[in-house]
Amino acid sequence: MQNRDAGHTPVTVIGLGLMGQALAGAFLRAGHPTTVWNRTAAKADRLVAQGAKPAHSVGDAVAASPLLVVCVSDYRAVRDLLDPLGDALDGRVLVNLTSGTSAQARETADWAARRGVTYLDGAIMAVPAGIGTAEAVLLYSGPRSAFDRYEPALRGLGAGTTYLGGDHGLSSLYDVAILGVMWSVLNGFLHGAALLGTAGVDAGAFAPFASTSIGTVTGWLAGYARQIDDGTYPADDATIDTHLAAMDHLVHESESVGVNAELPRLIKALTDRAIADGRGGDSYAAMIERFRAPR
Amino acid sequence: MQNRDAGHTPVTVIGLGLMGQALAGAFLRAGHPTTVWNRTAAKADRLVAQGAKPAHSVGDAVAASPLLVVCVSDYRAVRDLLDPLGDALDGRVLVNLTSGTSAQARETADWAARRGVTYLDGAIMAVPAGIGTAEAVLLYSGPRSAFDRYEPALRGLGAGTTYLGGDHGLSSLYDVAILGVMWSVLNGFLHGAALLGTAGVDAGAFAPFASTSIGTVTGWLAGYARQIDDGTYPADDATIDTHLAAMDHLVHESESVGVNAELPRLIKALTDRAIADGRGGDSYAAMIERFRAPR
Repeated sequence: MQNRDAGHTPVTVIGLGLMGQALAGAFLRAGHPTTVWNRTAAKADRLVAQGAKPAHSVGDAVAASPLLVVCVSDYRAVRDLLDPLGDALDGRVLVNLTSGTSAQARETADWAARRGVTYLDGAIMAVPAGIGTAEAVLLYSGPRSAFDRYEPALRGLGAGTTYLGGDHGLSSLYDVAILGVMWSVLNGFLHGAALLGTAGVDAGAFAPFASTSIGTVTGWLAGYARQIDDGTYPADDATIDTHLAAMDHLVHESESVGVNAELPRLIKALTDRAIADGRGGDSYAAMIERFRAPR
Repeated sequence: MQNRDAGHTPVTVIGLGLMGQALAGAFLRAGHPTTVWNRTAAKADRLVAQGAKPAHSVGDAVAASPLLVVCVSDYRAVRDLLDPLGDALDGRVLVNLTSGTSAQARETADWAARRGVTYLDGAIMAVPAGIGTAEAVLLYSGPRSAFDRYEPALRGLGAGTTYLGGDHGLSSLYDVAILGVMWSVLNGFLHGAALLGTAGVDAGAFAPFASTSIGTVTGWLAGYARQIDDGTYPADDATIDTHLAAMDHLVHESESVGVNAELPRLIKALTDRAIADGRGGDSYAAMIERFRAPR
């Protein structure tokens, strides 16, 4: 199977849910001969009208292209679909954009290796409507050579196409780590908006304050990351002890005005444990140890 | 008591912990005749060497200036210090920068009104070393006229001097709401760094990804705030149902690699409740209802 001009690499998309349809549509718009397959064939109709070739079986879909992009409900579905194909997979490059965990990605990489399949695991940090745009971030992990070879095709799915490393688990890990950050920001904002709402303050009035403070904290991350990687946490700004006093106010304020206090209580509980662990005089970066510790 | 040229408004600072010393130092540097008092008098020594006038009693301190700035351990200490002074407080402007809750601020405003004291409640969002700099944010609430009158003096404490409104509880509420956002961002980052650390990824490698995603979410806040203020949550981006599927991955991934899963579990639990409440098809902004609801 030879590499071809990036604009014309034939690609097969397996799984035509909303996301799979968006992926196939982006490949088509970029000029790739695109074969599509879905268990419920009717989901291919719109793509076929746009020039996609419908495959009549998974086997035909796999045979049609050197590059296979799979986006189905879960990793079990990936294996259920592809495992029966046996040697037909040999020599193909499989890019799995199905959502899952790092362990599933690594297991699938082992399975792929046994089948002679070159495997890239990927994670999509975009909604279907964002696929193919400047905003879409797609994360890939697995062999660098496979990513490099098909990067021009993959980049058509989103300008934020990023290679993370050889460990197939990285794309899933980065995906949930980044989502966790995003939900944390949103929840912090919503909690604050709920607090201020009790005094009749609009969320719109709070948003600029929240944005400014988020920007301030974002500026601290690189320095805190260095402390984490060094394993030393000098409190150049404020100690964990100092944070705790203000956390008491947050918990008490939340309880006192009658908004949900679970998030503040968790913030404080983690900090209490860090202090019990002797970290009260360190910077907030030392809290990494509480997040590393299962509980 | 007449207003004077801003540069020369006499000010009294009561309470000379690290923060009180920083406040008095900033007033001195800005050219204000500055009187200082502390229960333990020796804490005034360095300030006196810089030109501050030591008061020999709280009564003398209050008599010395039209503008009183108090920064002590808690609101009870404020009342314990000032209540015995009776009529001596009449006509003074009291700016209370002691940390506390909105309820304490409002109670203190009621007390001040009975004493003929014009009261501003304030919150300091800076470490002592930041006082007087461009980075220091100080929030004030209470009568606008009092803020306007002394704003030139107060602005010397930090360029981010901000008036929030007449409700004395606002400065405390904004303070903890903003801190809650900041801790949330940090915790989200630390959780993600812990997750990626299990695959040998440095926190320094994760920080740019976290920063970018935080920036993305920050861009959503104004729109979400509008939805919250309108009370309608059209899912133009992703539904809460869609978020839940990815939250399952975050919880499972955290548990599976052995990092602390309390934060992901809380994120998911709040979302589960929103869905049980019929909000699955709405945007994430509808989660505000979960934060408004005590539990």
